[in-house]
Amino acid sequence: MDCYDAAEALSRPEIAQLQIGRLRRSLAQAAQSPFYARRFAEVGFDPESVHSLDDVGRIPFTTKQDLRDSYPDAMLALPHSEMVRMHASSGTTGTPTVIYHTQKDLDWWASLMARCMYMVGLRRTDVFQNMSGYGLFTGGLGIHYGAEKLGCLTIPAGAGNSHRQIKLLTDFKVTGIHIIPSYALYLHSIFAEIGVDPRDLPLRVALVGAEPYTEEARGRLQELYGIKAYNSYGLSEMNGPGVAFECQEQNGMHVWEDAYLAEIVDPATGEPVAEGELGELVMTTLGREGMPVIRYRTRDMTRFLPGQCPCGRAHRRIDRLHGRCDDMLIIKGVNIFPMQIERVLMAMPEVGQDYQIVLERDGYIDNIRVRVEIRDEFFVEDMRQLGALQKRIAARLRDEILVTPKVELVERNSLPKTEGKASRVVDKRESGA
Amino acid sequence: MDCYDAAEALSRPEIAQLQIGRLRRSLAQAAQSPFYARRFAEVGFDPESVHSLDDVGRIPFTTKQDLRDSYPDAMLALPHSEMVRMHASSGTTGTPTVIYHTQKDLDWWASLMARCMYMVGLRRTDVFQNMSGYGLFTGGLGIHYGAEKLGCLTIPAGAGNSHRQIKLLTDFKVTGIHIIPSYALYLHSIFAEIGVDPRDLPLRVALVGAEPYTEEARGRLQELYGIKAYNSYGLSEMNGPGVAFECQEQNGMHVWEDAYLAEIVDPATGEPVAEGELGELVMTTLGREGMPVIRYRTRDMTRFLPGQCPCGRAHRRIDRLHGRCDDMLIIKGVNIFPMQIERVLMAMPEVGQDYQIVLERDGYIDNIRVRVEIRDEFFVEDMRQLGALQKRIAARLRDEILVTPKVELVERNSLPKTEGKASRVVDKRESGA
Ligand SMILES: [Zn+2]
Ligand SMILES: [Zn+2]
Repeated sequence: MDCYDAAEALSRPEIAQLQIGRLRRSLAQAAQSPFYARRFAEVGFDPESVHSLDDVGRIPFTTKQDLRDSYPDAMLALPHSEMVRMHASSGTTGTPTVIYHTQKDLDWWASLMARCMYMVGLRRTDVFQNMSGYGLFTGGLGIHYGAEKLGCLTIPAGAGNSHRQIKLLTDFKVTGIHIIPSYALYLHSIFAEIGVDPRDLPLRVALVGAEPYTEEARGRLQELYGIKAYNSYGLSEMNGPGVAFECQEQNGMHVWEDAYLAEIVDPATGEPVAEGELGELVMTTLGREGMPVIRYRTRDMTRFLPGQCPCGRAHRRIDRLHGRCDDMLIIKGVNIFPMQIERVLMAMPEVGQDYQIVLERDGYIDNIRVRVEIRDEFFVEDMRQLGALQKRIAARLRDEILVTPKVELVERNSLPKTEGKASRVVDKRESGA
Repeated sequence: MDCYDAAEALSRPEIAQLQIGRLRRSLAQAAQSPFYARRFAEVGFDPESVHSLDDVGRIPFTTKQDLRDSYPDAMLALPHSEMVRMHASSGTTGTPTVIYHTQKDLDWWASLMARCMYMVGLRRTDVFQNMSGYGLFTGGLGIHYGAEKLGCLTIPAGAGNSHRQIKLLTDFKVTGIHIIPSYALYLHSIFAEIGVDPRDLPLRVALVGAEPYTEEARGRLQELYGIKAYNSYGLSEMNGPGVAFECQEQNGMHVWEDAYLAEIVDPATGEPVAEGELGELVMTTLGREGMPVIRYRTRDMTRFLPGQCPCGRAHRRIDRLHGRCDDMLIIKGVNIFPMQIERVLMAMPEVGQDYQIVLERDGYIDNIRVRVEIRDEFFVEDMRQLGALQKRIAARLRDEILVTPKVELVERNSLPKTEGKASRVVDKRESGA
């Protein structure tokens, strides 16, 4: 295994040993902050009482609301003057969540990010174009510092300005990019407009993340650009990008367990799920000195992938995100995520841009109806053909979500325009789920 | 003198000694690049032949066109793989100018920037909000790295989103900002809207630059915010911000002469101007290893301020920029910059937003006519009052530009809307200047 740093090659027992030591240090450090000092006291938790990873369940959780309540700086575990960077969630309404970093924290974050990039084959000889917006959003500076640390020639292109992006990609023989999947698909249409085939460029690797997208979208992206696209998982509460990352196997994202303690719990009870089962990801920083965050409820649903990764890294892999706990729909006792439905629809060539998920109550029974936009060329007069398509979509959805939905085919532009997955769900049941 | 680093406190002889050594090294380094190797050979210049600063005049200039011609990387003096950052001028049309940096170059740039910030009283305990756009524009990452290097808590706010800027300024007790002057004035109107007086905030220091603005605008900004505003000079060809900076005397910008060799030449002949005279600033990087740039014609007009700065720093000061060589107008044999006219007009409360400079030829004599928008409340019926105002404006302009212009007073919104200083000039002379 060709590694960026030694921690990457640790065995499971070595990881476990490292984790308990670092967890104890992180708890002690967290207890220095006004927020955790009070929280630990309130629930009668003694950070010194944690001696093995089996004790983790006794440590109180931290929620998004806790972060808001500790605004602007009640979670700082070191003096304010030690902090050199701040990132905050966007939005002018409501209380933002704020994460502080010391210089040492930033260095470590950059190293973790550099490790991810090295893992997917990027080297200091590569030219890397970061197409993320910079600023308070962690995708910009987070990836940027990692790329510079690795020693790539880093082009801070920022977001937007597609013609300039293409000029940079072309003129500077860019080999690696960080890009949002939907933007990558859009950018391809600009490439087509100007008559350049991105497969003719030396571009080799894309880091993708920041928005949910399907395996099918990845496949399309890889084919259109002639590259490998690697999934990234990160959240600003755990720094940002660099938390978990795919290796070249492209089969699950290795969580850097020397830097983070990852658990998967039942979102309702907070109890650990059985090995390999779906649940909410809970994360603890194991190395952040300025602002440790303990057992953070990410609201992201995923599971640990079983078995050993062929790449040889023992850091456990998490599955693609199944969605946010908060987006989860319960239909006939089954948990369904809108993203599962999107994934099925996106993989079918007959399906257009839009769809809508309608939840209905028929007497005492909840039903799910999926309204699907069909591409013009498939919206034929022949009712039999349409009926067959309708059945095929319903069958594929049932395979994925384990409930048979009603499927309704609609013409292009006949669904209301929405933004984001969640707003595509219309709940017409009296009391909601 | 309280210094960030020792180079700041060098005496004149020490600076001169350092400069000649570093200049020789920079020339030798530059000669490693394809561009300079050819250029030096073409003009028969031997970099080894430079033994004292008196030899500088024999070194060939570098122009913006040379940078374009060497696109994308003919000025690299080290292997491409040593580069870790690239900045480029914006614009999708025409060839951009591109500057590359090694890790060592970035570290030095950050140190120079940290030195500027320390000089105006910022310390590691300060909270610094960078309101510059990030990305390829050097004002974002350039200032950001300096602020982090100094150890300030750095808030990468980026450009725009005024309500969030104000929330960050307020909630995080920001003491230092980097802001564009016109945006600072606009932001004040948002402060007024939400009923917050920025003078009540702990804000103390603003770094301003990136666009030409007048001494009067600085005064207004300082008063409105209750802060000190310090002028910054930088250009991407010389890294970006951190080239020259005002000390707390606010009287000229110290050029960091350990890092840059600065000359002022006649833009027409390229010969040095007499000490203290106005001319084009020419700059040479003395420490950049990845891409040295030698005797760069900045097109910026300024002069060295005479005498010793009371702050004790021996690094020479340049005056506020008088404009770009290319904007210079020649009327009756006198050099006039549109910015001089703007400066006079902006200082008069009767003058509104717009003005226009019209160049005319009357027989064999060039004339300058300035059309000035007057604020509604001053645009009175009384012709005598208007006549007096007209004369006052003409007299003040003559004091500044040494030529008596014709002044025409016009009502609000009666001038064509334009962008930028240069487009406010209308040349009606047959053959131009
Ligand atoms: Zn693997
Ligand atoms: Zn001074």
